[in-house]
Amino acid sequence: MEDNFRIGLCQMKVVDDKDSNLYKAKDMIGKAAKNGAEMVVLPEMFNCPYDTSKFKDYAEPRFKSKSLKAVSSVAIENDVYLVAGSIPELLDKNLYNSCFIFNKNGDVLNVHRKMHLFDVDIPGAEFRESEIITAGNTVTVVETPPIKIGVAICYDMRFPELFRLMGLKGADIMIVPGAFNMTTGPAHWETTIRARAIDNQTYVAAVSPSPNTDLSYVAYGHSMVVDPWGNVVAQAGVDEEIIYASIDKNYIQKLRNELPLLKNRREDVYELIEKIKK
Amino acid sequence: MEDNFRIGLCQMKVVDDKDSNLYKAKDMIGKAAKNGAEMVVLPEMFNCPYDTSKFKDYAEPRFKSKSLKAVSSVAIENDVYLVAGSIPELLDKNLYNSCFIFNKNGDVLNVHRKMHLFDVDIPGAEFRESEIITAGNTVTVVETPPIKIGVAICYDMRFPELFRLMGLKGADIMIVPGAFNMTTGPAHWETTIRARAIDNQTYVAAVSPSPNTDLSYVAYGHSMVVDPWGNVVAQAGVDEEIIYASIDKNYIQKLRNELPLLKNRREDVYELIEKIKK
Repeated sequence: MEDNFRIGLCQMKVVDDKDSNLYKAKDMIGKAAKNGAEMVVLPEMFNCPYDTSKFKDYAEPRFKSKSLKAVSSVAIENDVYLVAGSIPELLDKNLYNSCFIFNKNGDVLNVHRKMHLFDVDIPGAEFRESEIITAGNTVTVVETPPIKIGVAICYDMRFPELFRLMGLKGADIMIVPGAFNMTTGPAHWETTIRARAIDNQTYVAAVSPSPNTDLSYVAYGHSMVVDPWGNVVAQAGVDEEIIYASIDKNYIQKLRNELPLLKNRREDVYELIEKIKK
Repeated sequence: MEDNFRIGLCQMKVVDDKDSNLYKAKDMIGKAAKNGAEMVVLPEMFNCPYDTSKFKDYAEPRFKSKSLKAVSSVAIENDVYLVAGSIPELLDKNLYNSCFIFNKNGDVLNVHRKMHLFDVDIPGAEFRESEIITAGNTVTVVETPPIKIGVAICYDMRFPELFRLMGLKGADIMIVPGAFNMTTGPAHWETTIRARAIDNQTYVAAVSPSPNTDLSYVAYGHSMVVDPWGNVVAQAGVDEEIIYASIDKNYIQKLRNELPLLKNRREDVYELIEKIKK
């Protein structure tokens, strides 16, 4: 079963204290590795409350990032790939919501900067991420090997175009650090995750913080892994926990042979184009 | 509440006898109208078993169609819009899986010809629609008024590109005559319908035949209407029945103001283009 690959999703409870968050993240990465995960994923804003008034204080530049150094060190020690959720990243005086992807040597393979900013007026869940965060412009697909991962962050998941582009670039699994809230979570989290998996016939792994009612924005939890047929193969509740799933590339190919969705697209009628930007 | 519009979905049991199917369709259209529906929808292949070996025998050319004449006549009598599921249509020696959309006077407002043909090798549910059916090439959005409807047929629903294009053309509701089967139905029918509604913030009404185990292809049933927040607002089981829902254009606008998904698309990073064909 050399094509099977075990992934661990850390649904950690993020608090308003960076050192506590880093301690927790390191602990969970170590535990996930000891339980056989070859790739470990952290949630969106794992080092910082999801709160626009906090992002600046918690932000770090990539090459002087205490947070990234902490989590990548423990990943190296444990010989695992790490998809480091996201942190507020300071770059050229701008802030980004950025996911760094590390190989087993701690090298950064790629960075996904959240492309769709969460600007909503939902009653009880108002948020205006673009007041403080700058959007990224890149569709992110990373060959680790042994698997090819697409990476998106939270609100990015609302946009089927991005997931189709990752699918067409050959992603086997879409990894989504995300923090839906107590309004959008119950309504849309599972359906959206499952639909992206079904449409693109890839695995999807979505990783939320555990809900913390002491914070201004309460994440939904319910981290989950969905297989390419749309089955939920691992799911957390609301507590802090690590969930695991086995990723089988052969299963992707089997389904695509039986139900050739990507092949049956009508590229003569519609075309989805990626515009490459600086 | 002038913006509310009542739609009726006829989950009829299709049998291997055209006259029986037409009798049943007419009866259900009349009943739906009497129960206050202003628009009535029939399922995919309402006059014919969903079976490639039957399509040619049941096929009719548009202007000499006994089936279309029968159902449009009863729609005129009852003063309703009619989305006439689909029939095997004979056109220029080719067969199409075609949905005719009628106004209250029985005029054809538009025709949607199934764009994605169902060619699959799913164990127990093999099907090769393209052996006998020719694909249509047009994204179909129709201004009735009072509402703007997008129309797709069954396997078309698998392709988020088509639904996004209908959404961008201003559809308030996507109407989908469809016949998922007993494998794909339980796995994907509801999730796909709900995701198309959530992503595009439109209503979606999907109309299946009632399952008939006497036929070679057994439809899943479970016709449903989903609102733009993703809630299932009407749902059939497996029996023959008519389900109803109220379509509220103001609710679409309210949700789009709160959660501006279409506005938040990154058209500077990706672009979905419709290629107009003959």
